[in-house]
Amino acid sequence: MSRIIVAAAKPEATRHWQAIMQAALPEFEVVGWEPGAPATGARYAIVWAPPKEVFEVEKNLEAIFNLGAGVDALLALPNLPDIPLFRLQDAGMSSQMTEYVTYHLASLSRGFATYAEHQRQAHWQQLPPPSYRNWPVGVMGLGLLGRHVAQAVAALGYPVAGWARSPRQLDGVEAFHGAAQFKRFLNRTRVLVNLLPLTEDTRGIINHELLASLMPDSVIINIARGGHVVDEDLLKALNAGRIQLAVLDVFNQEPLPAEHPYWSHPKVRVTPHVAAVTLDDHAAEQISQGIRSLAQGQTPGGLVSRDTGY
Amino acid sequence: MSRIIVAAAKPEATRHWQAIMQAALPEFEVVGWEPGAPATGARYAIVWAPPKEVFEVEKNLEAIFNLGAGVDALLALPNLPDIPLFRLQDAGMSSQMTEYVTYHLASLSRGFATYAEHQRQAHWQQLPPPSYRNWPVGVMGLGLLGRHVAQAVAALGYPVAGWARSPRQLDGVEAFHGAAQFKRFLNRTRVLVNLLPLTEDTRGIINHELLASLMPDSVIINIARGGHVVDEDLLKALNAGRIQLAVLDVFNQEPLPAEHPYWSHPKVRVTPHVAAVTLDDHAAEQISQGIRSLAQGQTPGGLVSRDTGY
Repeated sequence: MSRIIVAAAKPEATRHWQAIMQAALPEFEVVGWEPGAPATGARYAIVWAPPKEVFEVEKNLEAIFNLGAGVDALLALPNLPDIPLFRLQDAGMSSQMTEYVTYHLASLSRGFATYAEHQRQAHWQQLPPPSYRNWPVGVMGLGLLGRHVAQAVAALGYPVAGWARSPRQLDGVEAFHGAAQFKRFLNRTRVLVNLLPLTEDTRGIINHELLASLMPDSVIINIARGGHVVDEDLLKALNAGRIQLAVLDVFNQEPLPAEHPYWSHPKVRVTPHVAAVTLDDHAAEQISQGIRSLAQGQTPGGLVSRDTGY
Repeated sequence: MSRIIVAAAKPEATRHWQAIMQAALPEFEVVGWEPGAPATGARYAIVWAPPKEVFEVEKNLEAIFNLGAGVDALLALPNLPDIPLFRLQDAGMSSQMTEYVTYHLASLSRGFATYAEHQRQAHWQQLPPPSYRNWPVGVMGLGLLGRHVAQAVAALGYPVAGWARSPRQLDGVEAFHGAAQFKRFLNRTRVLVNLLPLTEDTRGIINHELLASLMPDSVIINIARGGHVVDEDLLKALNAGRIQLAVLDVFNQEPLPAEHPYWSHPKVRVTPHVAAVTLDDHAAEQISQGIRSLAQGQTPGGLVSRDTGY
């Protein structure tokens, strides 16, 4: 019976996923990683911020499955073996991301935050009717998650554009691509949603130059990686009144340190990296299907390119 | 040249819509109602909570178009002529309603309200992953708006059921109908969204009996009419802890009086009848198409049945 090893940063997470994946893949023996234990000879590894020792010990691995969509931290491991690496493609994350974006967008565009203020004063006042035209949304990154979010927001009536490295076509979404079209994309964007992978090309992309190119009174929603943001540039733009709100789910340092200015900034909303959480049943289904098709000689979806980093 | 008369509760609203509809229907003469002015001989009336005098003066009307989806107040006018009455069918309202519902739903189901609390304490804590299964949504009323909201919420991953007077079929939504299935519908519902028309049958439907039949810890979202709610029954259920939250956009008396207990109740969210606002361009398009097809002897959509009241 072929073996699969499960390795997460914390032992309780390893046990959690070992049990789930064993139930999903009864034809395999699914073993949880234990530091210091001898090699299991596993063919496949299922990982979630794994200790790098896993890859010193397990030398028979044929493929790695990551329990998340972003693989930037994994690719940074110096001893990651050069075998196929698969990442989660949706696993319930696209609708969670959509919910996150539409919630924070509606809070402003529909005046829901203002109405909550008014309630405290028992004040009945209808704001001007919603004008979706005033809230052009721009989605950076048009992978599975970015495409889903862009189209869902467009369906609500917002003008939506998307920007990606290479050309894309998306119903109902104005498409921009590459460095040459980046500025035009930013110039027409008031609500910038970041769903880019974190790579050498995209690190620090939300910097002074980007922030200065957006429409006035703009909003940043970062649900990708903290490393995309140059924090001091963002804080300066918020304090200068150029950006009216930053909704941040991810940070250069996580947990966000208690003394970080984001916590108490009146123009920042902080959530603790929860915009989209891997849902157990979705992840188990996707990874078990992936392992089965790999074992049958096929190539499942979610294969990471080492060149692009996603 | 045939005439159209526009009549709203307030003179500025009459002027607003007169200008919009004249631009949309250049082949007609569109006149704004003025109290005391002689009959215009108009064939069509476009109305928005009109003064009842309109119908004493204008005796040549062949049809009435209402600038809203609900016609309960209009049908209550004693001198409403017995001619075809059309109501708005969507006019940008279904996506606004969806935004309203998903915003207030996510505030709870995704813990966004809790995360806002945590931010005040600079407290980083991931709540358990979202479990959509724990938030079964039930939509009462499956007209155009109810169907749209039900399917949009189902697409996010929530289990959704709908209830209507007569049988309906809706992809991805469990359908209930009629008095016989009402209790079963309520028993499986934790988040009750009301989108019923207000009629003799539905007035006061959100009463003690209904509230006692919902799942424990339930949530009421009323975006239909205040007359659907028995306010004292709802306040009792909130105070007894049976209902955890009521999100109310419409009220038995509007504006909601400043001394009403809803304003300061910690378990009530008040918005001032803004869940869906008629959007000028959508309404103008729908009504101008309606008048043109009527003038050509066809029957446009949105015809109100005097029997059912919607």
